[in-house]
Amino acid sequence: MNLPETLARIQPLDAAAMAAARARQDMLTKPHGSLGRLEELSVKVAGMTGQPLPRTDRKAVVTMAADHGIAMEEQVSAYPSEVTPQMVYNFLNSGAAINVLARQLGARVTVVDMGVAVELDAPATLLNKKVAFGTQNMAKGPAMSRDQAIRAIEAGIAVVEGLVGEGLDLVATGDMGIGNTTASSAIVAAITGAPVAAVTGRGTGIDDNLLANKVALIQRALEINRPDPADALDVLAKVGGFEIAGLVGVILGSAAHRVPVVVDGFISGAAALVAGEMCPQARDYLIAAHSSVEIGHRVILERMELAPLLNLDLRLGEGTGAALAMHLVEAAVRILKEMATFAEAGVSESKEQDACSAS
Amino acid sequence: MNLPETLARIQPLDAAAMAAARARQDMLTKPHGSLGRLEELSVKVAGMTGQPLPRTDRKAVVTMAADHGIAMEEQVSAYPSEVTPQMVYNFLNSGAAINVLARQLGARVTVVDMGVAVELDAPATLLNKKVAFGTQNMAKGPAMSRDQAIRAIEAGIAVVEGLVGEGLDLVATGDMGIGNTTASSAIVAAITGAPVAAVTGRGTGIDDNLLANKVALIQRALEINRPDPADALDVLAKVGGFEIAGLVGVILGSAAHRVPVVVDGFISGAAALVAGEMCPQARDYLIAAHSSVEIGHRVILERMELAPLLNLDLRLGEGTGAALAMHLVEAAVRILKEMATFAEAGVSESKEQDACSAS
Repeated sequence: MNLPETLARIQPLDAAAMAAARARQDMLTKPHGSLGRLEELSVKVAGMTGQPLPRTDRKAVVTMAADHGIAMEEQVSAYPSEVTPQMVYNFLNSGAAINVLARQLGARVTVVDMGVAVELDAPATLLNKKVAFGTQNMAKGPAMSRDQAIRAIEAGIAVVEGLVGEGLDLVATGDMGIGNTTASSAIVAAITGAPVAAVTGRGTGIDDNLLANKVALIQRALEINRPDPADALDVLAKVGGFEIAGLVGVILGSAAHRVPVVVDGFISGAAALVAGEMCPQARDYLIAAHSSVEIGHRVILERMELAPLLNLDLRLGEGTGAALAMHLVEAAVRILKEMATFAEAGVSESKEQDACSAS
Repeated sequence: MNLPETLARIQPLDAAAMAAARARQDMLTKPHGSLGRLEELSVKVAGMTGQPLPRTDRKAVVTMAADHGIAMEEQVSAYPSEVTPQMVYNFLNSGAAINVLARQLGARVTVVDMGVAVELDAPATLLNKKVAFGTQNMAKGPAMSRDQAIRAIEAGIAVVEGLVGEGLDLVATGDMGIGNTTASSAIVAAITGAPVAAVTGRGTGIDDNLLANKVALIQRALEINRPDPADALDVLAKVGGFEIAGLVGVILGSAAHRVPVVVDGFISGAAALVAGEMCPQARDYLIAAHSSVEIGHRVILERMELAPLLNLDLRLGEGTGAALAMHLVEAAVRILKEMATFAEAGVSESKEQDACSAS
């Protein structure tokens, strides 16, 4: 589907499936509410999927890679841009953190070249959706054209539709791109109006001087490009990145196909922010995996009213936090599906339920 | 081993294994520290096991059940004591939350009768370590004798040694026993000196009247029994429970055999508190799974300087929070073992490492 068709297809959560899931939670052999956030999470997944007893066995992590003109021309990262393709090869050779975590989880990893700055000598397992050889330097002009942003989003939609065709119950978002915390901070500042310094962190680990440089460059990018906060696509095009745009497509496509999206950290969060501005209904399909060390992430989570499942001081990206959180999402759904009810197990219910017990 | 032999065998963390694990973490293809708490956790597990690359595939949850005289004679719980054996049968029939979560994790569940108040008509899969048919009512006198407490601890040691004999890389603690938050609150108040009301919560879900009654009964139990805060075994015997004592044995036995222990919530935490008072060195083998809704749990975690991995508003027990957290422990270790190094993957290291970059 193209972008307008995808946006038009995103529906509200399924109230009947949620009611059925909630009713079943209350019959399971445990005190009501004793599994805390897992209970609401299972009800939410039922609403997303439209299934009172959702499947969770077909899981995928989509890790999208691209380069950033600002990182190729300026000093914003602790790592050179050549690390982006090196890490793509590492993903394809199963040596990266996301490969290890996806293997543990039983999830496949789909690696997508959305705009790496070099031609990749890659096997068929790499999805080639390259829009360009990296974005332009946003400190000098728009990172990409509006048309490129739409093409990148539609590439992300196509990726998720390919996975849906193979069978997909849960999807995790992941990113790789030297310089992409810079683009994400710019997106968050542009959309929320938060001061750049309040949403800009150290990324892979820059020092105070480089951080000051990064903040100044983002401010310059916002001044030069004047992205329109009311037009998320304009923000994405002017100060975003190809992998971020691809993830916007993954999120919108997943929502359109009623697939719950486990959103990783700051970069995925920036994509979720854009997707949510383009289609507020899409927010209902998001599960925030964790709270990142990157300071701008909190602003995203608050704006979107998402409560992260984990807080482990992660700041790696790739989808690692989302893969970790997927264990909890799967646990929540398995509890809903697989536990015995009070009646099945012959377990007595709470004495509270007697009308006279509170007298 | 008996209790004194077990205590004598508990060693400090293995510094060489930790140094090797830390060195390897710094060579893996990710920015230093970017996997946050998972990195320190992997180093800790290396220190516990004495292995720079620990195994994690052989996992077990030990769920210990017992009844409490105070719950059989007084009103402290939302559920009747008959639920304890009913839930043991539910565990044995794989219908409970812990069964579902252990299945997802690939862990076996060892169910132990430490002192259920009825004779259980149970298959061979139930370990019978019954010390008595429930404790005595601690609001009237000691819950158990000192000798019974030692027997229960040694039963827990024997359970874990049986698992070690089959192969055990990680163990989770779990509990079932109507009334056992009452015993746990009493233990925490006795050992830490915290006011009873500050460490007593609603357990499975009691109302304000029952909560006030529960607090008053715990205060009476402490006044009548006068447990010696400097003698954790005395506290355990006078105001504890058989499943809690059994879990003390599981913890001490695991520490003696260098098996990391993932400690569930409040009841397991009370057992960990007792174990840590009996042998401070044993604390090094503990991983706090989650932060429970039960207010006394925070006091335990602070006292033991343990930072929980999860905060999901859980209050079920059975080992459910520990099973969930085990995914994270396993993830931490798999990252350490399975990721490629910078050299293996041909990935460039951080520019920060140039001597002149911070000038």
